[in-house]
Amino acid sequence: MVTSRDVARLAGVSQPTVSRALRDDPKVSEATKRQVREAAAALGYAPNAIGRALSLGRSTRVGLVVTDLRNQFYTYVIAPMHHELARAGYELVLITETSESGPVTEHVVANGLSGVVLATTTTDSILPVRLGDRGVPFVYFNRTARNVPADSVVVDPEPGMTALVKDIVAQGHTRVGAVFGAEDTSTGQVREVVLRRLLLDQGIVLAERNVRHGPFDLEAGYGSTLQLLDQPEPPTLIICANDVVAIGALNAAAERGVTVPSDLSVVGFDDLPIAGFAMVQLSTIAYDLDAMSREAARLLVSRIEDPGVEEARSVVFPTSYVGRSTLGPAAS
Amino acid sequence: MVTSRDVARLAGVSQPTVSRALRDDPKVSEATKRQVREAAAALGYAPNAIGRALSLGRSTRVGLVVTDLRNQFYTYVIAPMHHELARAGYELVLITETSESGPVTEHVVANGLSGVVLATTTTDSILPVRLGDRGVPFVYFNRTARNVPADSVVVDPEPGMTALVKDIVAQGHTRVGAVFGAEDTSTGQVREVVLRRLLLDQGIVLAERNVRHGPFDLEAGYGSTLQLLDQPEPPTLIICANDVVAIGALNAAAERGVTVPSDLSVVGFDDLPIAGFAMVQLSTIAYDLDAMSREAARLLVSRIEDPGVEEARSVVFPTSYVGRSTLGPAAS
Repeated sequence: MVTSRDVARLAGVSQPTVSRALRDDPKVSEATKRQVREAAAALGYAPNAIGRALSLGRSTRVGLVVTDLRNQFYTYVIAPMHHELARAGYELVLITETSESGPVTEHVVANGLSGVVLATTTTDSILPVRLGDRGVPFVYFNRTARNVPADSVVVDPEPGMTALVKDIVAQGHTRVGAVFGAEDTSTGQVREVVLRRLLLDQGIVLAERNVRHGPFDLEAGYGSTLQLLDQPEPPTLIICANDVVAIGALNAAAERGVTVPSDLSVVGFDDLPIAGFAMVQLSTIAYDLDAMSREAARLLVSRIEDPGVEEARSVVFPTSYVGRSTLGPAAS
Repeated sequence: MVTSRDVARLAGVSQPTVSRALRDDPKVSEATKRQVREAAAALGYAPNAIGRALSLGRSTRVGLVVTDLRNQFYTYVIAPMHHELARAGYELVLITETSESGPVTEHVVANGLSGVVLATTTTDSILPVRLGDRGVPFVYFNRTARNVPADSVVVDPEPGMTALVKDIVAQGHTRVGAVFGAEDTSTGQVREVVLRRLLLDQGIVLAERNVRHGPFDLEAGYGSTLQLLDQPEPPTLIICANDVVAIGALNAAAERGVTVPSDLSVVGFDDLPIAGFAMVQLSTIAYDLDAMSREAARLLVSRIEDPGVEEARSVVFPTSYVGRSTLGPAAS
């Protein structure tokens, strides 16, 4: 096995200089770095992450905590987060709250993760409290908890929803339904409050019989929409908590032979790639999920490498309305 | 910071016994294990994975090498693989071949991963050679390489394709097109060879103008289908390399105002959840991707923990044809 001692000998530098050069320490000159890298390459030397973790006192692995890895929303979070972390020299480890390997906090501490991104926070989560107690850096992704301040990346639904409500009024919808998100999430709560207020400003009241709540998944959209459609006087429009819920709603419409948008309009939130498919053409509310995922990675890395920053930082992503084919004139 | 010494003192056992008890060593009695676990819980002690990795001489982390994390195929691979690995006490680390952190082999060795699942193998990949040279255990997922034998989980397309071709003949299709997968992958090659042979047995020859090859992604399905549809006499059926390619084909049909299946039939491969959506109803070839992903995890863990096994094991998953709404009678 080739060691850093061998690399030092070949490069003609000291052993500590090899470590510093390979972790791109600015105190080492570019010429020396090149020399060390060439010697390392010639000998096939790879610095050992376990050893590096011990010497740094922390690992270069961070976790992403999600509930359901099969939810396609996470597909578009994991990819950019992975790439941004790789750029910074970190690895992404997936952690599910239902993982059989035990409670998340123990898992994070036991496996020496340097920090975590939380994408599953409910308003009364105890996970942030526990991570805080253990001194584990973390960042809220999309959803936040009330009781523990921490760095966060969130979405402001208001600009997108304002434009959406304008279109709803223009298309003549008055019998409006909604499949809101989970009531114990900040995203579910905020989107519901903002939407109800904006609709009310236009004189549109959501009848309780046309409102459902559910997790942000396909089944919630599908099951709730079947219930709404099976009423004697169904809504002419269903506003969904997100695109995945809206796809469930479109499946329910297809199942019942209800044509979108002539019989029923449907709107989502997130603008995932599937929303833009020619065979879907979902009207929805867009924001830069890719940038938001990368920003969460950057905030976490900065929190890990510079723990001195005191205040919690919040990066807010604006929204816009993307009108496609699923929101049309109100059915008569 | 609580150490294993503190736990040993509270439990009234030796320090090595604490380590052995916490890693569930069968040589330690159940009574002692309980005593140690209770002491560890009382003190808030979490065994350190970095220390454990050093003492075991290996980590409990394995990698999954993929090309494109945004391809929804991987969503349904990552979730079951993650769960199976968590059950066995391992963490899943995602590695992309385009990762900025450098060549995959160096990454795996440098980060002390215990093994990897390869989901991106091309027939002439050098990655298996390099991993073999470094003694890193690995498992081929879905695709294999010619030159390096190793454990693998693969799909046998023949049963599903046999039933598919029977349906194609029954529906009267003779002008058949195909968007095959990448020509440098074992899956692309095998599926093409088997399909051509089964069609030929029924007197159906694929005209070269109706055949395209591409990566297994949406863009390949979309772009190739537009080309096939824009010919003077387009095929009445397009057989796609997988479901993701078929969704691209359906989008192209929607784009051109071509109705499926009355103007054009489309078939996929994989039976991902989207194939069963009421608004999609894709006819496709199914196999147990969930079981296959879990099996890959099990093979890798067994290879890591019992390196003595000599022969390469191959687990083959059978296929079946799922006729839904996108394959209908040939357009006249």
